[in-house]
Amino acid sequence: MDLALTRLLSHLSSPSRRISDSAIRRLSRYVRELEAMEAAGEGTVPSRVLAARAGTTAAQVRKDFSSFGSFGKRGMGYAVSPLRERLSTILGVDRRWPVLLVGAGRVGSALFEYPRFRSRGFDFVAVLDHSPEKVGREWKGMRIEHVRDVARIVPERGIRIAILAVPGPEAQKVAEDLVSAGVRGILNFAPTKLRMPPGVAVNDVDLVMELEALSFLLSSGGKMAEGPE
Amino acid sequence: MDLALTRLLSHLSSPSRRISDSAIRRLSRYVRELEAMEAAGEGTVPSRVLAARAGTTAAQVRKDFSSFGSFGKRGMGYAVSPLRERLSTILGVDRRWPVLLVGAGRVGSALFEYPRFRSRGFDFVAVLDHSPEKVGREWKGMRIEHVRDVARIVPERGIRIAILAVPGPEAQKVAEDLVSAGVRGILNFAPTKLRMPPGVAVNDVDLVMELEALSFLLSSGGKMAEGPE
Repeated sequence: MDLALTRLLSHLSSPSRRISDSAIRRLSRYVRELEAMEAAGEGTVPSRVLAARAGTTAAQVRKDFSSFGSFGKRGMGYAVSPLRERLSTILGVDRRWPVLLVGAGRVGSALFEYPRFRSRGFDFVAVLDHSPEKVGREWKGMRIEHVRDVARIVPERGIRIAILAVPGPEAQKVAEDLVSAGVRGILNFAPTKLRMPPGVAVNDVDLVMELEALSFLLSSGGKMAEGPE
Repeated sequence: MDLALTRLLSHLSSPSRRISDSAIRRLSRYVRELEAMEAAGEGTVPSRVLAARAGTTAAQVRKDFSSFGSFGKRGMGYAVSPLRERLSTILGVDRRWPVLLVGAGRVGSALFEYPRFRSRGFDFVAVLDHSPEKVGREWKGMRIEHVRDVARIVPERGIRIAILAVPGPEAQKVAEDLVSAGVRGILNFAPTKLRMPPGVAVNDVDLVMELEALSFLLSSGGKMAEGPE
């Protein structure tokens, strides 16, 4: 790994070497804003402009990119295209990822039809379910396959990322089968905390918890924000 | 505000007094696990058991609940029902929340049909869109209304939480109208960083970013996890 990349990663990571979610989110935002600037024909961007568009501070941007001396010069801003390329590589979005969807229910079908996945490099290459009513059906030309074939399908199609949209009680077992088959990153929509071996990345999307975070902030949290009594 | 609540909130909050997302997520998990235990007729729970089920450590649980002396006794565990009630109040889930959905597209419709919102106390009381093809249609007996009526609908139905599922370029304007109408918490599915006044809580759910976090960890981040260089 080159020095600049090593430096950026160690800056982004916390003392415990775990890279914080918010740092990864910032990387995503930078890439998007740089892409938009590139499309608009902008050659360089000052850190304060990139910061405002990405919803952070100029100091944070400079800190995040301090390892990239060659992409910016004091007062000149960053060179948009090379920076976008470099960050895309780090984020792993300079390539396409074959993605497995497990669970052909309501949530699964909305995810399958979500247009922004494909435009960002994530291609569904298989949809699995265990329900006899669903297996064999076609979604946009893709036949839903049986989840019992996961051990064959994952290595065959080079899958490392799976989206899990199954009911809570089934999630742990299915996730274990995915990992045995070779999956290393799981986007988990099941309302279950998965217990996974080291080396497997799990990202939970719990929509109810997202609403609960708001209800918290509008209840006790909001009260506290006004100052404890 | 009572003393135990004040103590818990100040423990959960970071030095900057902003309560961390992960702390709020832990609260959600505790409530769920305590509910399941209550349903199973369990009267008390040791911190290590609650920790294992909520995916955290016993030390973290004890730290989170240290303000609740009356709910636990050394070696005896926590009394399930009173603790569940107390945490539900703090999380704001001891009541029902009328929720507004803006955007009757693919993502909006999946969210509208998502059964776990209602079972957790979040009730859709209005669905808004601006498309003439959608306004006036019925979804499960609820008529889709025009987004231009937001200033009337929000106060009329006592709405403080909205789910925003509109295209990125429209999101900022719609969000501003929501806030003017009285909304104080927004669950944002648009791929846009909203600029909101203080006192408005925004929770972003960006599904592509969730996948990008995995691609990051399986690319550079994963390499680093194995040790730099």
